[in-house]
Amino acid sequence: MNIDDYFTFLKFQSISADPNHQADVLACLEWLKDYLQKMGFEVEVWPTSTYPTLFASYCKIPSAKTLLIYNHYDVQPVDPLDEWNSPPFEPTLKGDTVFARGAQDNKGQCFYVLLALKTLLEKEGKLPVNVKLCIEGDEETGSVGLSEIAPFKTKELKADYLLIADLGIKSEKEPAITLGTRGIVTMEVKLTTATSDLHSGEHGGIALNPIQELAHLLSKLHDEETGRVMVPGFYDGVHELTEEERNALDFSFDAKAYERSFGALPIGGEKNYTPLESAWVRPTLEFNGIGGGYDGPGFKTVLPKCATAKISCRVVANQDPNKIAIQVVEFLEQLKPFGVKLHVEILHANGAISTSPASHIAKIAMKTYSEVFNIPCKCIMTGGSIGVVGPLAKASSAEVLFLGLGLPDDQIHAPNEHFNLSRIQKGMAIISNIILETGKAEAG
Amino acid sequence: MNIDDYFTFLKFQSISADPNHQADVLACLEWLKDYLQKMGFEVEVWPTSTYPTLFASYCKIPSAKTLLIYNHYDVQPVDPLDEWNSPPFEPTLKGDTVFARGAQDNKGQCFYVLLALKTLLEKEGKLPVNVKLCIEGDEETGSVGLSEIAPFKTKELKADYLLIADLGIKSEKEPAITLGTRGIVTMEVKLTTATSDLHSGEHGGIALNPIQELAHLLSKLHDEETGRVMVPGFYDGVHELTEEERNALDFSFDAKAYERSFGALPIGGEKNYTPLESAWVRPTLEFNGIGGGYDGPGFKTVLPKCATAKISCRVVANQDPNKIAIQVVEFLEQLKPFGVKLHVEILHANGAISTSPASHIAKIAMKTYSEVFNIPCKCIMTGGSIGVVGPLAKASSAEVLFLGLGLPDDQIHAPNEHFNLSRIQKGMAIISNIILETGKAEAG
Repeated sequence: MNIDDYFTFLKFQSISADPNHQADVLACLEWLKDYLQKMGFEVEVWPTSTYPTLFASYCKIPSAKTLLIYNHYDVQPVDPLDEWNSPPFEPTLKGDTVFARGAQDNKGQCFYVLLALKTLLEKEGKLPVNVKLCIEGDEETGSVGLSEIAPFKTKELKADYLLIADLGIKSEKEPAITLGTRGIVTMEVKLTTATSDLHSGEHGGIALNPIQELAHLLSKLHDEETGRVMVPGFYDGVHELTEEERNALDFSFDAKAYERSFGALPIGGEKNYTPLESAWVRPTLEFNGIGGGYDGPGFKTVLPKCATAKISCRVVANQDPNKIAIQVVEFLEQLKPFGVKLHVEILHANGAISTSPASHIAKIAMKTYSEVFNIPCKCIMTGGSIGVVGPLAKASSAEVLFLGLGLPDDQIHAPNEHFNLSRIQKGMAIISNIILETGKAEAG
Repeated sequence: MNIDDYFTFLKFQSISADPNHQADVLACLEWLKDYLQKMGFEVEVWPTSTYPTLFASYCKIPSAKTLLIYNHYDVQPVDPLDEWNSPPFEPTLKGDTVFARGAQDNKGQCFYVLLALKTLLEKEGKLPVNVKLCIEGDEETGSVGLSEIAPFKTKELKADYLLIADLGIKSEKEPAITLGTRGIVTMEVKLTTATSDLHSGEHGGIALNPIQELAHLLSKLHDEETGRVMVPGFYDGVHELTEEERNALDFSFDAKAYERSFGALPIGGEKNYTPLESAWVRPTLEFNGIGGGYDGPGFKTVLPKCATAKISCRVVANQDPNKIAIQVVEFLEQLKPFGVKLHVEILHANGAISTSPASHIAKIAMKTYSEVFNIPCKCIMTGGSIGVVGPLAKASSAEVLFLGLGLPDDQIHAPNEHFNLSRIQKGMAIISNIILETGKAEAG
């Protein structure tokens, strides 16, 4: 396998979060555009309020099915830089493993899609289905631009199947497709007790302490014994799995391996659910940030005027994230003690997305994974949320299939991100086979 | 009154916390040294591990009492600079009020001490007592240097009375001396649940959330109903005021004025104590900082590996701050849930300091305040802690008297710090009179 193109792709410092890398993001886009044009795709660059989306299509058979494949060309920032063993934008091959920012997320997974298409076109001179690629430049900063324009691109995005090639599997011995993601709603809580920061010596014992009040408030959102979220109505409408759905999903979980990988015991969430049930099919309420007073080195005797917390709720199929957010806000208002001001801002909401294991595209994908790995393919889910999928699914009217070959220890978003060449090859084979099988099914 | 010298003193940007202002701090020291030498004082510059302390003495009567007066020549940083109505180091007179960093804390209060001595020496040609000045350059960063060297300067510092001229009064109509400060012990709590930050979608419901665990832990340190600190032994040894002590102290408190000044209701602390009882004669446990996860603009779906809190306990007379800290650590260890790592570092401790209202120097000071204000002088306390007083009191073997003319709304440590010329004059009169009265008592 010639990996030069992969390495070229990885060398672009396309960090969408950092304005200093604007030219690098756009240079990466130009390179991709050129690459796809040379493959014979028709390429459009869609401007958005953030970075442009690259849209490429190879649609030669009006009667054939259309696959829309989603990837992104932007990457996460690289700090802390001193924890990298090799420079993040100088791809380094050690054995079979490529170390670089984006090696997996998502340039590695994008690259095997490109390689599959390139190889098919070189070998066959054509594709048996119509293929559209939607390669975003803003995924790592929230997919704002593409989410905004997707509703205006229904004609271009129209497809039968939408493949989201940004997911993973549990291990190299457990091939799997992903049947769904949880939804999310995020909010910011601000609790204010004074108009200015005060001196904790003079005012300690007189004024309320917002950190103390916030700790009391947050401590009431989960039951300590059961781990259950105490917000009234929080579990309303949660879809209880049918026997069939439960059987399709692989809830097996290696607690020891988890502890080894993350130094964390898998004992969060609700006590009467297994770890993967909690993460896949149960809603959760997480604190993603907390701040107030002085948190730097040493000490300051400040009695701060306010304290803040960031909260996210993950929701499952059949739940409305906005309704959940309102329930959280109402509960906080109800718990709020006398003498404090509470402000809650709801930031962002996405519903859960799910695919039936009995759907046509899921069956094709499972067959393909099983063949490529020579191990029966399972179904998994992800507790995360991919914000752009909702708008893309709606605009394309397509059935969604989440897939990918990420592994839990690829260090995505962290120093020493890596991917291996055997997965590039497997990914290429899987995408080729899905295209060929979809074409066959078509012909049959 | 010639205020030129005061303004010159204020123009030095003697910010001890900012290494960029090292030359300014030392220039201010040189100016003071020269100023005191011209007044006839013998001046020593004591190097310390931080900024030098200026020690000046005018000791001509071996049989007379010795007053040691403490001030500091360093000031707080000035940020946020854009909230100042005039440049912080260009003293600006509006009516009777001087706006500048240090206008009160502590250059204003230091200046009226210098002015009193200068005027007495110019008028009388001598002082009726021995006077020693200890003017520190590091108060705003914790008095580390002076605290370290004080034990080695017992001969120089030896005095009968130690006047700490860095305090205040409730209002210009309520002259008062300060009978004591609380002590303090500070600590940093770190609660860890994983070896790396995790993605809250993938791991939310599996791993423990350190912010959630910290909120639960901190919420158990105070009883929500009574405001009482729940650490076993926390109130052990608290000195309950005698009727006489209670009568000497002015516990009156204007809740409306407090709310107007700080936008805060005075409903913190223990519910069965008044605000000033809570702040002066009761120990408290305050949270001075909390941090964990992402606290910047927008949102990050991080499940952090750890969360931290800064805690300070204020202690009262008869309490050992180190013992209190150990009790807090033991209680936290006892409350710590399974699966979390807890690390508590005890940072710094100082005991409480108190003066009897029946002492000779307190009586002189009260008489003087009453005369200068033409209003009967009261006794107050402060909930804050002045770290250097313990080492200075011990090294000097002197009885401590806290005094000063600060007001709660002088904006010390904040933009638009100010002091007024009438308080410079009153301060000068008070210091002069204390010197003269101490000399008289001596002669009598």
